[in-house]
Amino acid sequence: MFDTAESDPRLTKEQARPLEAKLRAALLKAQYARLKKAQRSLLIVVAGIDGAGKGASVSLLNEWMDARHIRTMAFGAPTAEEKDHPFLWRYWRQLPAGGKIGIVFGSWYQPLFQEAARKRPDQAAIQAHAQDIRHFENLLSNDGVQIIKLWYHLSQDAQRARIDQLLSDPRTAWQVRPEEIKARKKFSRLRDAGALGISLTHSDHAPWQVIPSADEQMRSIATGQAVLAALRRAAHKPVADLPDSGAMEASGQALRAAEIKAALRGAAQRKAVRLEDLDYRATLSDKEYEEQLAMWQGRLAELARSKKFSRLPLILVFEGNDAAGKGGAIRRITHALDARQFHAIPISAPSPEESAHPYLWRFWRDLPRPGNVAIYDRSWYGRVLVERVENYAKAAEWQRAYAEINQFEAQLRGSGALVVKFWLAITKEEQLKRFREREASPFKSFKITADDWRNRKKWDAYQLAANDMFARSDTADCPWLVLPANDKQHARVAVLEHIVQAVEKAL
Amino acid sequence: MFDTAESDPRLTKEQARPLEAKLRAALLKAQYARLKKAQRSLLIVVAGIDGAGKGASVSLLNEWMDARHIRTMAFGAPTAEEKDHPFLWRYWRQLPAGGKIGIVFGSWYQPLFQEAARKRPDQAAIQAHAQDIRHFENLLSNDGVQIIKLWYHLSQDAQRARIDQLLSDPRTAWQVRPEEIKARKKFSRLRDAGALGISLTHSDHAPWQVIPSADEQMRSIATGQAVLAALRRAAHKPVADLPDSGAMEASGQALRAAEIKAALRGAAQRKAVRLEDLDYRATLSDKEYEEQLAMWQGRLAELARSKKFSRLPLILVFEGNDAAGKGGAIRRITHALDARQFHAIPISAPSPEESAHPYLWRFWRDLPRPGNVAIYDRSWYGRVLVERVENYAKAAEWQRAYAEINQFEAQLRGSGALVVKFWLAITKEEQLKRFREREASPFKSFKITADDWRNRKKWDAYQLAANDMFARSDTADCPWLVLPANDKQHARVAVLEHIVQAVEKAL
Repeated sequence: MFDTAESDPRLTKEQARPLEAKLRAALLKAQYARLKKAQRSLLIVVAGIDGAGKGASVSLLNEWMDARHIRTMAFGAPTAEEKDHPFLWRYWRQLPAGGKIGIVFGSWYQPLFQEAARKRPDQAAIQAHAQDIRHFENLLSNDGVQIIKLWYHLSQDAQRARIDQLLSDPRTAWQVRPEEIKARKKFSRLRDAGALGISLTHSDHAPWQVIPSADEQMRSIATGQAVLAALRRAAHKPVADLPDSGAMEASGQALRAAEIKAALRGAAQRKAVRLEDLDYRATLSDKEYEEQLAMWQGRLAELARSKKFSRLPLILVFEGNDAAGKGGAIRRITHALDARQFHAIPISAPSPEESAHPYLWRFWRDLPRPGNVAIYDRSWYGRVLVERVENYAKAAEWQRAYAEINQFEAQLRGSGALVVKFWLAITKEEQLKRFREREASPFKSFKITADDWRNRKKWDAYQLAANDMFARSDTADCPWLVLPANDKQHARVAVLEHIVQAVEKAL
Repeated sequence: MFDTAESDPRLTKEQARPLEAKLRAALLKAQYARLKKAQRSLLIVVAGIDGAGKGASVSLLNEWMDARHIRTMAFGAPTAEEKDHPFLWRYWRQLPAGGKIGIVFGSWYQPLFQEAARKRPDQAAIQAHAQDIRHFENLLSNDGVQIIKLWYHLSQDAQRARIDQLLSDPRTAWQVRPEEIKARKKFSRLRDAGALGISLTHSDHAPWQVIPSADEQMRSIATGQAVLAALRRAAHKPVADLPDSGAMEASGQALRAAEIKAALRGAAQRKAVRLEDLDYRATLSDKEYEEQLAMWQGRLAELARSKKFSRLPLILVFEGNDAAGKGGAIRRITHALDARQFHAIPISAPSPEESAHPYLWRFWRDLPRPGNVAIYDRSWYGRVLVERVENYAKAAEWQRAYAEINQFEAQLRGSGALVVKFWLAITKEEQLKRFREREASPFKSFKITADDWRNRKKWDAYQLAANDMFARSDTADCPWLVLPANDKQHARVAVLEHIVQAVEKAL
């Protein structure tokens, strides 16, 4: 893998100059044509052997292309806030929008390469890191983010010579970081870690490219050429990530298919709820309601103010038929919480900024810190509900979303968060009654629009989508609670009770 | 101020019901008509005596209006990240966009009320807090944010009765926070603190409204009415904040005028630079350049890696003529920095999301933490340069921007940041030469557009705007460094040298 790079190939200035002139013009052209018009973004991951000139190469790309559309994202040790969130959170937050280029230093590969470079690496941890990375990069490339990963490499002799030369001049010695002096001693371990990490995470849609780095001209030209090839690469054609998709396995993506199957397995083994099997008859009298509401609110309030709770990020997801009473149920919850600890997030059509990013991006932004509660009034499940039924998402997009969502929720769980998902279900007759009541009320009529009546005509399609969603995303860790809600009071109490029990179990 | 509220007025349910029905319909209508159409936002600041039912009132507003366009922003003790930024940072970041309503708990009034409620309050600190608040609210209301501030109040007897009643029932006892039990004992001190804070910060465009809170019906109706009045209030007509504006003083805004004068005073007392007085002849030979560049980059690199520097947020601002070499100078700086510690921010026309917020909003977002460097390639000064010359901003807007910018930078300085501002100046002939060179280069032609040629025709207007800017925003703490840049090498070295010296002085 590194043979060419470790032969330390060189270019003379005379050789490099005409190549550079052509490259720069082509890079600019490609940056505008492919990115600005097509609104696709490009992520350039920068990694490699220490002392190979990664920083200088990033400066170069900023100089050769239009730097106004490039954002360099460099990550060191995570901040306290970043530690309070899933590992990928800080990378999600800074994803470039369509048309932009992001250059990533200190990327999501850090834990993988660190583990692989240990004296006695934990092979299971390495495989797990690699799998997380593959999921993440698959998801991004499916959603229109192009990825190119550059590994800067040179021979051990060249590395030593380069560092010694920099250190010998006080005006350049600062360019050598203390880590690099250390790294010289572990060249072969870092090299092997790189080779392993690359082999586990190389793919057609997110390829690695080794950049020979002993010689500045060679490094510059190779960097420019790799980025140019990425910019010119045709858009990745995602396949539907269904577990039974023979086409995908036939196309040699067996590994990916196996992982997607695993992500869906939890769901498949559980008995899926179906809306038509629900019993809508349960009710609560006013007196029962007032008593039980006060009781469960009291218990939730106590829990939410407990010491243990301050370590739990809580995520509540509300989906359901139009007019099923999501807003009312949410207000009964927030009433029991301190205003400083919750954030209610209504989800509607994405803004232009949100549309310019992968579809999960906007949900990553508002994730709660430990001790806080994020309440989603509609959620990422819109992808497999409204976007599916209304054809806002292509079939391939919503079909692979089940696995993406399961992976997303697994990451939330993995970081210590509790995710509780509700579907409030009402019958078609009850919905009609509520629509009519809303229309007749001077201060509820805003809640009912032509859209609601249009959606109602697609009742069966929405029910089918909901049933599919339960079947595919009702995992052991993040199960769906499907609640009959024809009686609002009964549903509100059931929601509170379920939250209290889930939190008590999680603490 | 509190006589009515402390008489604990009440409404029976029979009196409240018809009022409520009308109010809810009117609130919804006003929310849509005034906010959604006009794209103006509303901030509702919630404060008052503990145990007066503030939380319940916020729930109520969420229920009575369309909660999808309301964001409740509740602030407790600042996080580590918030402490690393100016005090107002967390409020700026969460400002509602046009069309939205923000309800603020734990607002920018916290330090004022806390100080005023001490046994021996520091009067100077109180005045300083009040002045900061007035500046902030003036700026927001000038930029289309409406503000209403609600003070929830009741008599001491009613407060005691309400808290005792909640405590007597285990199902409601959790609604009483420990602070509230304590606060009962300091009723009169908190009351007087409220009265003082209100009197110092009440204004026509950001009025306080006292809400009688002993009785739930009365509190609800009064809350709704106050918000309705705010929604219906005509847009605030800002006046030009020029220090010599006689009209403003005549209109009774003497206090504001005095503060604005003070903000501009620092600048007025300094001898302003004028572009026509610059000497453009300085040059550096290639050899001098290489030596001095390496020397200053080395010193900057060393400084930026020092322990002391890890406590300094550094903000570099680059303005100048088109083609003056801002990008090249910035790259010479970033070359000396660790990629993880700087963020280069190119500023161009605002996005739709940015336009929906007050104009300083987008600059607050990217402020650096201690030990980090934010480099603005163009900046908030666009308001008094391109927006002035091209008539993107109204005269009143760019005229008051000088004071707003000085206050903004004073807040940055006050939080410990160092702000270094550069103007790179070239002559009209040199610009023409560079434009032609850029057009002829296959990889620089993207840097020159029809806009640049259009701007060039307005050369004199831009020079006038720049001179005015130096005169009004060259403060002792954040001075302008106006650098002749006809010789790029000379300018780059001068920039680096100045940064090193400014940082050394600040550490």
